[in-house]
Amino acid sequence: MSRIQPPGRPFDDPELCASRAELARALRTFLPAEAVLAREEEVRPYECDGLSVYRQTPLLVVLPRDVAEVRQVMRLCHQRRVPVVARGAGTGLSGGALPCGEGIVLSLARLDRILALEPEALLARVQPGVRNLAISEAAAAHGLYYAPDPSSQIACTIGGNVAENSGGVHCLKYGLTVHNVLAIKLVSAAGELIELGGEALDGPGYDLLALYIGSEGMLGITVEVTVRLLPRPPLARALLAAFDDVGRAGAAVGEIIAAGILPAGLEMMDGPAIRAAEDFIGAGYPVEAAAILLCELDGTEAEVAAQVEAVETLLARAGATEVRVSRDETERARFWQGRKSAFPAVGRISPDYYCMDGTIPRRALPEVLRRTAELAAEHDLAVANVFHAGDGNLHPLILFDANRPGELERTEALGARLLELCVEVGGTITGEHGVGVEKLGQMCVQFSARELAQFHAVKSAFDPAGLLNPGKGVPTPRRCSEYRQLPSPAHPHRH
Amino acid sequence: MSRIQPPGRPFDDPELCASRAELARALRTFLPAEAVLAREEEVRPYECDGLSVYRQTPLLVVLPRDVAEVRQVMRLCHQRRVPVVARGAGTGLSGGALPCGEGIVLSLARLDRILALEPEALLARVQPGVRNLAISEAAAAHGLYYAPDPSSQIACTIGGNVAENSGGVHCLKYGLTVHNVLAIKLVSAAGELIELGGEALDGPGYDLLALYIGSEGMLGITVEVTVRLLPRPPLARALLAAFDDVGRAGAAVGEIIAAGILPAGLEMMDGPAIRAAEDFIGAGYPVEAAAILLCELDGTEAEVAAQVEAVETLLARAGATEVRVSRDETERARFWQGRKSAFPAVGRISPDYYCMDGTIPRRALPEVLRRTAELAAEHDLAVANVFHAGDGNLHPLILFDANRPGELERTEALGARLLELCVEVGGTITGEHGVGVEKLGQMCVQFSARELAQFHAVKSAFDPAGLLNPGKGVPTPRRCSEYRQLPSPAHPHRH
Repeated sequence: MSRIQPPGRPFDDPELCASRAELARALRTFLPAEAVLAREEEVRPYECDGLSVYRQTPLLVVLPRDVAEVRQVMRLCHQRRVPVVARGAGTGLSGGALPCGEGIVLSLARLDRILALEPEALLARVQPGVRNLAISEAAAAHGLYYAPDPSSQIACTIGGNVAENSGGVHCLKYGLTVHNVLAIKLVSAAGELIELGGEALDGPGYDLLALYIGSEGMLGITVEVTVRLLPRPPLARALLAAFDDVGRAGAAVGEIIAAGILPAGLEMMDGPAIRAAEDFIGAGYPVEAAAILLCELDGTEAEVAAQVEAVETLLARAGATEVRVSRDETERARFWQGRKSAFPAVGRISPDYYCMDGTIPRRALPEVLRRTAELAAEHDLAVANVFHAGDGNLHPLILFDANRPGELERTEALGARLLELCVEVGGTITGEHGVGVEKLGQMCVQFSARELAQFHAVKSAFDPAGLLNPGKGVPTPRRCSEYRQLPSPAHPHRH
Repeated sequence: MSRIQPPGRPFDDPELCASRAELARALRTFLPAEAVLAREEEVRPYECDGLSVYRQTPLLVVLPRDVAEVRQVMRLCHQRRVPVVARGAGTGLSGGALPCGEGIVLSLARLDRILALEPEALLARVQPGVRNLAISEAAAAHGLYYAPDPSSQIACTIGGNVAENSGGVHCLKYGLTVHNVLAIKLVSAAGELIELGGEALDGPGYDLLALYIGSEGMLGITVEVTVRLLPRPPLARALLAAFDDVGRAGAAVGEIIAAGILPAGLEMMDGPAIRAAEDFIGAGYPVEAAAILLCELDGTEAEVAAQVEAVETLLARAGATEVRVSRDETERARFWQGRKSAFPAVGRISPDYYCMDGTIPRRALPEVLRRTAELAAEHDLAVANVFHAGDGNLHPLILFDANRPGELERTEALGARLLELCVEVGGTITGEHGVGVEKLGQMCVQFSARELAQFHAVKSAFDPAGLLNPGKGVPTPRRCSEYRQLPSPAHPHRH
């Protein structure tokens, strides 16, 4: 990762200082002074997002208050060829909001209003800085909610969710951001306002809405999002199944799906994750288990009862050593508590951890879990697994100590190897965290040169000057040839 | 429509004959002679698709047998700058497969094999010429099916479904083609093989898969499609509700959806459509009704029972004069029989009919139905309405007689007016039929010049020479300025 990233120039580099002062002056002709942050202590909080191993101070941080101001900022930056990195809450995990040292960070935090809530039409029109959970809170009075629920949903914004096509525990049944957004208004690299999508299921012309969602701020600046709202299901119950073998738990996942049951959530934790969570939160998890599955079923009472019965039978037949069914909301919340606190729980038992994100076909679960353990042993590192099993979205947590010489490098190597394992079994290098700067190298493994060229061509169709979030998402051919020359074990199967 | 389309050169134009002979020779260096159709009587069957008011003979028709041959054809055409129009079963309704007089028609009919069916992974890998229904037939042995069911599903191919992002009666619950396709292999304009998507819910890079689906053959030639299969629901029941007022039926649709019920299908027919269908097929429809709703609910027995009860109550409260619930599969089939035969039924009562396709927000249903009737009266034409009410996808059928002077022109004018009405209420000019050549004019109403320019830029990112299905889908700026100069009543609200 960081081995390839060239170090940026220091904040007080004289040339940077001069262009900073000049650009700030130009921005302040139409923005209030306080909306342009130019001092080092002001811009420092923007130097990284949730992937804190990468840090870079931006030239300036700009905080417009409305769409008109966003357009003015973009027109100015376009005129002067200044790179622009959009930023929501900065909770991203792949470095997608990492600043560019010679460009501005455009924070959408002040565009934080819910513009309309239409319960009959099952939709809400919101500004990009609205927090994910705030939408569901506003819709709750009408019995509605916004389905995608990334684990950062208290903090993360809908604009960031659009950038990363965020998912969450419930996306197996309710889909990712792309399945729950109806329309977007964006400001183009040149400062023009463009509308994508609409309330209809389909629209004429190319599906630029779907193309835009998940494009990591590289095609435009999101200034308004119309989201689909769903009626809150009348009932949800959770099952907790213990297994004495990780592979058997993985196989059970495939059997539930193949039986035609679509759980609202189907999560898996392995032994190390179970024990870390239990030590931390005391959710009553079976600490001797090699793996647990958490399966949530929602719908009407009759529907849930029928599905609970079917899943119980399937789990028992798949070799579960114990199956519990939540009796009430308190118990359901307790089942989830351990899962929800798994990341901080792992943080307690290891000085550092690195959360990976890859996706595999469900049928490959047992094999990938086995090979993950083998690779961890080869790299002399421990891995805890906590993930969205139902949709094959893995989140191996590599435990390490950055203060021990060589451990960060071994962690990076293992992380890269695990992502490439996902590609080998027919999966992908990201499930919901995006590529950002973190996975540029693995993009060279996932895609052919022809496919990467196609991505660049599409990018140019939106941003010919390459000013929007440069250096993210899609590697240059040069970057790929550098990556391929890296010493093993970053990608040992190539050597 | 046809007033703008310039007439193509005749098939026996000497210059065309020369290039035809030359190109046929080049193609036959790698294709068997019978795979290159060059005689007028051979190419005549390809001169139009389901929208038969537009006709044009192609230079040649080519029928490759595998991906390698498709690539060779594309490379040759790319080298020689020959336009290529891909064709599936030719059942499209917007002229998307209308040939180009100076280019080839590339028929995918011979790529008709199901390559793999994986019941555990819930997917099938098929060639583009496989018929939509053939996938469900092959999957039936495993209790699975392919959900999108356009009314042409017996004949239409999955490649064509991808081109038009086809829907069908069940897309309200199960989505359009874009929601049911996992991956696509395509041959680019330059003859390269590109893979889009994969088995995972999300993938890295821009979502080119969604961009490609619905792109009407303008971005590439589809040579393989991986579709998602779903478990066949254990039970389905249908409700038939009669209303003495079209607006009340429209309002009932919104109330069902707002109550959080997602029917498998929710269709509406108005008086003229009901009576035409009943005369034709005798399904037992209430012929005095101003409108009927057909609502299908599927799932487990408990789930369906609960939903049937809820919908019955809602329909009664919404003012239905009669509600019937299917008692068995025979009765459910009879309820649907009238709906399914509505188009041919209307064909019996009118010498000609023109099927429109537009989408509106559900809340606008009562208003749009009222204004449709007013506009029909203004144009002195009758309209029958049969449509996917649940997702607001209208299909007004304009009844006319092409032999009466002026009626075709009045029909075209009314059709354009109805599509623009959809745009006025916040909807779109197509629900599932695509733009093709039919709706190029209305694209100028739907989109701003900036948005159309963005479409052209994306097109260029795939097909810089503009060889793939030229003249379809996205109008040129010139076409839009011509359209805007047309005399009313093509777009009376502009004058």
